[in-house]
Amino acid sequence: MTRFTVSYKLVADHEDEAMALSEKVAGEQSVEVPDDVLSPRIFEIFRGHTQKVSQTSESSWESKISYDSRLLGDDLSQFLNVLLGNVSLYNGVKVTGLSWDKLEHLQLNGPANGINGVRALCSAKSRENRRPLLCSALKPIGLSTAEIAEICYQFALGGIDLIKDDHGLANQASSPFEERVAACTAAVQKAADETGHKAIYLPNVTADGEQTLRRFSIAKKAGAGGALVIPHLCGLHQMNKLAADAEGFPIMAHPAFSGSYVLSNSFGFTPEFLYGELWKAFGADFSIYPNYGGRFSFSMESCKKINSACREELSATKKNCFPAPGGGIQRNSIRQFSEWYGKDTTFLIGGSLYQHPGGVKTACTELIDELESMYKET
Amino acid sequence: MTRFTVSYKLVADHEDEAMALSEKVAGEQSVEVPDDVLSPRIFEIFRGHTQKVSQTSESSWESKISYDSRLLGDDLSQFLNVLLGNVSLYNGVKVTGLSWDKLEHLQLNGPANGINGVRALCSAKSRENRRPLLCSALKPIGLSTAEIAEICYQFALGGIDLIKDDHGLANQASSPFEERVAACTAAVQKAADETGHKAIYLPNVTADGEQTLRRFSIAKKAGAGGALVIPHLCGLHQMNKLAADAEGFPIMAHPAFSGSYVLSNSFGFTPEFLYGELWKAFGADFSIYPNYGGRFSFSMESCKKINSACREELSATKKNCFPAPGGGIQRNSIRQFSEWYGKDTTFLIGGSLYQHPGGVKTACTELIDELESMYKET
Repeated sequence: MTRFTVSYKLVADHEDEAMALSEKVAGEQSVEVPDDVLSPRIFEIFRGHTQKVSQTSESSWESKISYDSRLLGDDLSQFLNVLLGNVSLYNGVKVTGLSWDKLEHLQLNGPANGINGVRALCSAKSRENRRPLLCSALKPIGLSTAEIAEICYQFALGGIDLIKDDHGLANQASSPFEERVAACTAAVQKAADETGHKAIYLPNVTADGEQTLRRFSIAKKAGAGGALVIPHLCGLHQMNKLAADAEGFPIMAHPAFSGSYVLSNSFGFTPEFLYGELWKAFGADFSIYPNYGGRFSFSMESCKKINSACREELSATKKNCFPAPGGGIQRNSIRQFSEWYGKDTTFLIGGSLYQHPGGVKTACTELIDELESMYKET
Repeated sequence: MTRFTVSYKLVADHEDEAMALSEKVAGEQSVEVPDDVLSPRIFEIFRGHTQKVSQTSESSWESKISYDSRLLGDDLSQFLNVLLGNVSLYNGVKVTGLSWDKLEHLQLNGPANGINGVRALCSAKSRENRRPLLCSALKPIGLSTAEIAEICYQFALGGIDLIKDDHGLANQASSPFEERVAACTAAVQKAADETGHKAIYLPNVTADGEQTLRRFSIAKKAGAGGALVIPHLCGLHQMNKLAADAEGFPIMAHPAFSGSYVLSNSFGFTPEFLYGELWKAFGADFSIYPNYGGRFSFSMESCKKINSACREELSATKKNCFPAPGGGIQRNSIRQFSEWYGKDTTFLIGGSLYQHPGGVKTACTELIDELESMYKET
């Protein structure tokens, strides 16, 4: 049977301490009983085994622990449990990596489209010269469906590539889900009929239990362009299930409710692991993360690491994922961010478009023109 | 319409800074656009409003922000989104409380049994003199169903009150879910036939999507006594759904994958809010948390706060929840912990029972005798 390897950052002062902590993690995440009550067979097969512990900085160590795939059974929830279940409660243990190629027996679907697949779905204008894509959000909650659809129409007229629901738009009485999806889908079509440019509209399908699957299906049938999913609210396994049916209908993953996993240096996941690797394996075609310089606190280094991780193809499916930094991007900074991050990026831009004195259509057009001119020059 | 209030701990150096951060949170968790683009109506109704900011220590402030229930629609996922969605990404903002009585329109089921309901389900021996309850876990993963059922039988013979699956037991080939549930249910019945004491067996039903509901239903039909649920793996909304059908079949919630929300002083949830309030609202009859003195790092103060929060009745249903500290409890410490924590506690004890030279049956009997004698004395 296959063993897969999880990499951890451990906080420890000495090598002995790091090794002891690694062995503690190896037991905690697998058999969870003291070694002296394990039979040799269970110890050998089912207990985690430290492969290597090496120092990375003064009080920081990298540990690699292998686990047998027989620990997992057929549940993705149990896979996440072995990855971070009880050690989510250990301050001093952080998941940094995983040998994904050893997990090919799990039903991890990966992105159905990937960067190339998403580009192929974009309107002709967006496909030219492989420039970064631009996505905005329909908001605020409280607007009527007609008001939201009008904004959607203006965005689409402005030539934006992607339009997503605000991640807070769910099934509020002010704009019920099904009504909104129909109206916004019609709005992007109307703009397309007028301009020849069709934006991809992604309604937020995040809900409770099977309701997420139902909304995804409603959105697809209504002719929307893809779906916004908040995996830490509806469940990563639910996003993975949607991904099985998302060819031509890309999934954009939103980080709400996920931040606690990535904000600490000493527990949880590294941002690049969560947003660049785990989400991709669970089916995200776009991974939204809080951009450097925005109202959150990610460093440029973290953002670049997330970008690289997203763009790496999954070995099993050869598909990758668009990094989608959100926050901090404005008309006067998009050129700079494009230089830093490169073409295969989807920029999320929200609030500042709404503040443009000429309206959101003009705001979009200016930004798209800025991007087009930048990439035509090169 | 009702407004509900969320309490936050904010990290800030001055009152102005705290107030600005509070207003930033109020916008972020609701309308998520700059105030200057909001109509007066949307600003008034849909934007969060800071009610009060007060200093609690040198760089720590308490902020109370009210939100209109119209923000929520009918999804619990959107409720969690308003509670901690994007601010999960803010280092310096931590959720500490909520006005639950203003959320009675949400489909939050709360515990189906509560402390009194669970006691009524316990075997006569466990009901006497309202002593703390004792729960152990079947492990390690890798044992066959027959081996697990034998341990279950020994625990039950030893007079333990509750027996749960290890939280890592899912549907592994070594002991498939349905087979294990049948065998362990038979094991506790066999012990009951012999001794008159029937332990409550709680298999782990945590799985992906609808599979969790199916396993819960299988467990119920097989005659198990309740269910172990890992809400941060299957989804809090899924636990809530199970709770609607859990009268006489209590739900024990396990903290795997939840630790990142509670380990920091400056983001996420306080442990007492997550394990004592949120889980209870979402249907936990028992809330397992990492005990003081165990292999995790909770303080005695945190543990006592969790205990108090669990025992408080939900205003809507008048039901509460058993605090279930795990880790650090042994034969020589259970008396001390009982004094600290009081009668309405369920102690989880695992590894040390397995290490007892006389076997798990003897280990259980000694512990139960210790508890019984303690409460007979009083």
